[in-house]
Amino acid sequence: MFLFVAIACPGYVYRYFLEAHMSKADFTEHTLSSERVHEGRLLKINVDRIKLPDGSESTREYVVHPGAVAIIPILASGRVIMERQFRYPHGRDFIEFPAGKIDPGEDTLATAQRELREETGYAADDWRHLTTIHPVIAYSTERIEIYVARGLTQGERALDPGEFLEVLEVEPAEAMQWLREGKITDVKTVIGLFWLDKLIRGDWQ
Amino acid sequence: MFLFVAIACPGYVYRYFLEAHMSKADFTEHTLSSERVHEGRLLKINVDRIKLPDGSESTREYVVHPGAVAIIPILASGRVIMERQFRYPHGRDFIEFPAGKIDPGEDTLATAQRELREETGYAADDWRHLTTIHPVIAYSTERIEIYVARGLTQGERALDPGEFLEVLEVEPAEAMQWLREGKITDVKTVIGLFWLDKLIRGDWQ
Repeated sequence: MFLFVAIACPGYVYRYFLEAHMSKADFTEHTLSSERVHEGRLLKINVDRIKLPDGSESTREYVVHPGAVAIIPILASGRVIMERQFRYPHGRDFIEFPAGKIDPGEDTLATAQRELREETGYAADDWRHLTTIHPVIAYSTERIEIYVARGLTQGERALDPGEFLEVLEVEPAEAMQWLREGKITDVKTVIGLFWLDKLIRGDWQ
Repeated sequence: MFLFVAIACPGYVYRYFLEAHMSKADFTEHTLSSERVHEGRLLKINVDRIKLPDGSESTREYVVHPGAVAIIPILASGRVIMERQFRYPHGRDFIEFPAGKIDPGEDTLATAQRELREETGYAADDWRHLTTIHPVIAYSTERIEIYVARGLTQGERALDPGEFLEVLEVEPAEAMQWLREGKITDVKTVIGLFWLDKLIRGDWQ
């Protein structure tokens, strides 16, 4: 079973890591059937019948998401580009790094370049993939690929219809203070700032 | 309009922060109607008709979530308690801090104490609320309250039926290495570890 999973899954390196550090107990939940129960304009919901490790059956309900990217755009001054945007589910503005969903078949770097240009007008000539995060492991397939963008050149924004946002230039130290005080709470932005802090301090390369 | 929002919204301090640092442009999206379009066992989905800042109309589709807590349990040795758990939407195990959903009417500290006891068997006599994070600002009302728990005493686990997980004791420095290498990617866990790193280094109190 473990060998099968290791071969079939692109995260096989991760499986070996788990095997090296943890017990061999296999918690895999096996799919018996899968049904699309809601097909919204934005949200697609599946409910799967599954077999639990003890042989009993249960269901799992989750959002099927195409994945997203977030960008940490760093100006020559060391300031970062952030956005203020109204987020309807919370009824208020958030301070965020630029981000957006991956279009079908789109390379994630191309998504990052497109979203940065559309939302802020900036193009960048130096791109680095920093990390991958999973915001909602309990109920969504979403992953977010975080990039750092340097060598920025300003152009024209091209917001989607119905998209309203303000572009800000912020000192990383000030953004970290906002994070600490609970004024930045969006997870892709919090994690991007903590990573940036590690890079600026020279703790991580 | 701004005054109304400031009085009606518990986050009025946040509004004043935004006004001090950003333009006065108001991106508020006003609710025209709200409909429950999916009522699953786990996921409740609303679609709202809204009025955009330019007066045009659109829709917003989102998960209505009760909120959750996550706990960073720190042993006297300095090690932290983590869990290995299979997460069906991603088809693999994740390394996480203990966490769980807030029951209706439950105080968030009570949720944290209950989830820590149920999942790991530990009780703690020293609790501190660290921060609040928003994992999915685009399509879920979920927030996660992160607590640090010290003064741990081990008791019996009481897992929910169908819940399978392994409890681990991990050195924070090792967990940070796993994070850096992309082996810890769950956002509540990543953010909890970055905060813990700040506390251990004495950068933050």
